[in-house]
Amino acid sequence: MNPRINIITLGVADLERSIDFYEKGLGWKRSQASQDDIVFFPLNGIVLALYPRDALANDACVEATGHGFSGMTLAYNTASEHEVDQVIAAVERLGATIVKRPQKVFWGGYSSYFRDPDGHLFEVAYNPFWELDSNGNVLLP
Amino acid sequence: MNPRINIITLGVADLERSIDFYEKGLGWKRSQASQDDIVFFPLNGIVLALYPRDALANDACVEATGHGFSGMTLAYNTASEHEVDQVIAAVERLGATIVKRPQKVFWGGYSSYFRDPDGHLFEVAYNPFWELDSNGNVLLP
Repeated sequence: MNPRINIITLGVADLERSIDFYEKGLGWKRSQASQDDIVFFPLNGIVLALYPRDALANDACVEATGHGFSGMTLAYNTASEHEVDQVIAAVERLGATIVKRPQKVFWGGYSSYFRDPDGHLFEVAYNPFWELDSNGNVLLP
Repeated sequence: MNPRINIITLGVADLERSIDFYEKGLGWKRSQASQDDIVFFPLNGIVLALYPRDALANDACVEATGHGFSGMTLAYNTASEHEVDQVIAAVERLGATIVKRPQKVFWGGYSSYFRDPDGHLFEVAYNPFWELDSNGNVLLP
């Protein structure tokens, strides 16, 4: 396997609600490859897909039941602490639950977490030790 | 928020076991930015991080307990059906659990799912309708 991941798929309870959050709320643009029951957002090289949770479990041949911590988080890195505050204020206006208010954290950065409408956890963080390129991608040694 | 995700963090029960799976097994190369308790793999523009599950929940200010379907999957797209078979054979030799054997699926592709050592679900799929660029990234309209 080459070092890559092509798609992150989030299982959602209400596709229209989630489309509203990501498309109308965050302003992410869906691909024309989207279909009635699955929506694709091209991100920086990868694709975020929204798909009904039960259908996703069925596709993976696993039981759909599950609760509590998913054990996986997604992170959005900003260019400043102020931008963390701005993003969190914006998603809170969209109805996202803020589970960790923006704050300085032990590793030297500034971080916050919100839940999307289905509880998927997003960190929004400024890492002063990491450089971002012109696309906002992290440049790691 | 610009359309991007910078980091996917997988909570893991045994960091060394997971490093073995991704680094020695899959052959992904860890960044020098990795530290004793967190490992970063630069992928196609994004970063996959491995971090102890309890510490990840603590960082997000949520309870660490949880079980069943996480509601989120990661996908690796290949250039052929044969490559799906090859990848699944390889991860099975590494001890991954194959939850869906490679098979033709309703949307016209060829797909399989495995679980990594912590149960995180990866799809390996060939989509004949999607074009990949020279880096293996999906080109979406």
